[in-house]
Amino acid sequence: MSLDEFGMINRYLKPLAKGFPGALALTDDAALIDCCSNEQIVIAKDALVENVHFLSSDPVDLIARKLLRTNLSDMAAMGAKPFGYLTMIAWPPTLQADFFPTFAKGLAADQREFAVHLLGGDTVSTSGPLVLSLTILGSVPKGHALTRSAAKIGDLVFVSGTLGDAALGLRVLRGLAATEDEALALVDRYRLPRPRIALGQALLGVAGAAIDVSDGLLADLGHIASTSAVGIDIDIVNLPLSEAARSLPGALEAALSGGDDYELAFTVPPGKIEEALMAAKRAGVPITQIGRVTERRGVRALDRQGQQLELAQTGWVHF
Amino acid sequence: MSLDEFGMINRYLKPLAKGFPGALALTDDAALIDCCSNEQIVIAKDALVENVHFLSSDPVDLIARKLLRTNLSDMAAMGAKPFGYLTMIAWPPTLQADFFPTFAKGLAADQREFAVHLLGGDTVSTSGPLVLSLTILGSVPKGHALTRSAAKIGDLVFVSGTLGDAALGLRVLRGLAATEDEALALVDRYRLPRPRIALGQALLGVAGAAIDVSDGLLADLGHIASTSAVGIDIDIVNLPLSEAARSLPGALEAALSGGDDYELAFTVPPGKIEEALMAAKRAGVPITQIGRVTERRGVRALDRQGQQLELAQTGWVHF
Repeated sequence: MSLDEFGMINRYLKPLAKGFPGALALTDDAALIDCCSNEQIVIAKDALVENVHFLSSDPVDLIARKLLRTNLSDMAAMGAKPFGYLTMIAWPPTLQADFFPTFAKGLAADQREFAVHLLGGDTVSTSGPLVLSLTILGSVPKGHALTRSAAKIGDLVFVSGTLGDAALGLRVLRGLAATEDEALALVDRYRLPRPRIALGQALLGVAGAAIDVSDGLLADLGHIASTSAVGIDIDIVNLPLSEAARSLPGALEAALSGGDDYELAFTVPPGKIEEALMAAKRAGVPITQIGRVTERRGVRALDRQGQQLELAQTGWVHF
Repeated sequence: MSLDEFGMINRYLKPLAKGFPGALALTDDAALIDCCSNEQIVIAKDALVENVHFLSSDPVDLIARKLLRTNLSDMAAMGAKPFGYLTMIAWPPTLQADFFPTFAKGLAADQREFAVHLLGGDTVSTSGPLVLSLTILGSVPKGHALTRSAAKIGDLVFVSGTLGDAALGLRVLRGLAATEDEALALVDRYRLPRPRIALGQALLGVAGAAIDVSDGLLADLGHIASTSAVGIDIDIVNLPLSEAARSLPGALEAALSGGDDYELAFTVPPGKIEEALMAAKRAGVPITQIGRVTERRGVRALDRQGQQLELAQTGWVHF
């Protein structure tokens, strides 16, 4: 592909900036964002690298949507309402000519779904693999953002949706045997995360600490535990597994340690459980109580008898 | 280098977030920015790729500062006051172990100089060259940002500092003969841009259109001309060349088409020339009148006789 950066931006990216006047139609060095004194701007930046975070064989429109959605998921975890984003595309010379139109098509689809606009960015060439970075912007009522540091001993721990599907989807793409229905469902979860934007906003004033499950449930709850200076116990019997995941080997491992689920894990004070369930209902997302916040530091996965499991070479075993 | 992302972030990046409470000590998915209703947030995102925008042999602390400064320059061009930034580092396995501490040292030096703080970001691994992306944030009084679209026919065109030094500095690094003093001065300009932050803010309400010279003077004035639907004539005899540049072959070409100068080019209505000169004095940066905004579209470089020069294979020639 020959580099016609300005032509490419004009043709495929400029339409994505329409509808946000502060994007200045991508003509300027920067974008302008109006502010309200009773709100805070929420900003995050996540990158994806070819064959690290997505496969070269993944459909390009889904790569674009995954890039946007992994960042939207950071907005969900803070309870923020997203409104715009900037992209950085470092593209290798081997890129197909239809990359940019297909990439833009994917972004356009998600702009409609999540009510966000492209505000700016940069395209550069690289001799290495495709590197994509995105900066996402949203807003929250001042002082009300969900953070990782607000978990309290005695809080209950919830998670949205189902866990482990994305990791199993990646394993299916790499050769794990599954029925056609299972494969479709799991691969879709790997390629197209569902950022829980509505749930995050519904949990403002209800949840304590929150995080999106990107590194894996135990690792991400570990971030809450360390930032909040508490411990967390998980009852593995309560982990929500999808129909497709349940029948495959390694489902429990995937639910505990597989990343890329982009579900929300959050803590709820005992007195607010009803409110949390109603918030989830309003957001149209099922949530499941999977554990509790403890005084004893660290994150533990407990079996039906309350025995701690440990990750061994062959999967999770009794401690 | 083994990937100990969390250890690296804690040790080298977290200190850079101190002093900005909304960065949440980099523990969370996103950062929080307080807003004022009489201001607009200004945001831009620029990337640098190894051996495209900097050389593998460039000192790592200067690569970090160049990354930050090229983005700060976008704030300068809008007249914005920068306050924070997010980084994306896609690092190859060949990276030296002292990369991160040295990179952070460079950022820390510029944080002090420009009063900005690290707000968040992402580090990922790549099999390709080092890819760096930065998102910069600033603020402007509402409705007063400098843009590319505000040039008017009859305005005069100014540029800050000197032009062509950075491009000549790159040529010196690649073998162009120069004295030691010339080499030092020019290479420094290539490796360490001077974003004209103070000048940009001083020009609010004075300048019409503005841009930072990153692609090359003619290309960047071309952006102003096309966005403002005007033309621009440049008198090459007035182009400000540094002592070091002046004595080297190709200085004029470098001043017209070399990128990476990160000076500000801007238009000033005839009635505001005194104000512009005073603004420059206040900012401590020399500015030079180099041309004028015309009705006839396009950007032209004119010699002493008013004859148009054109870029040929061998450099600029008479049209």
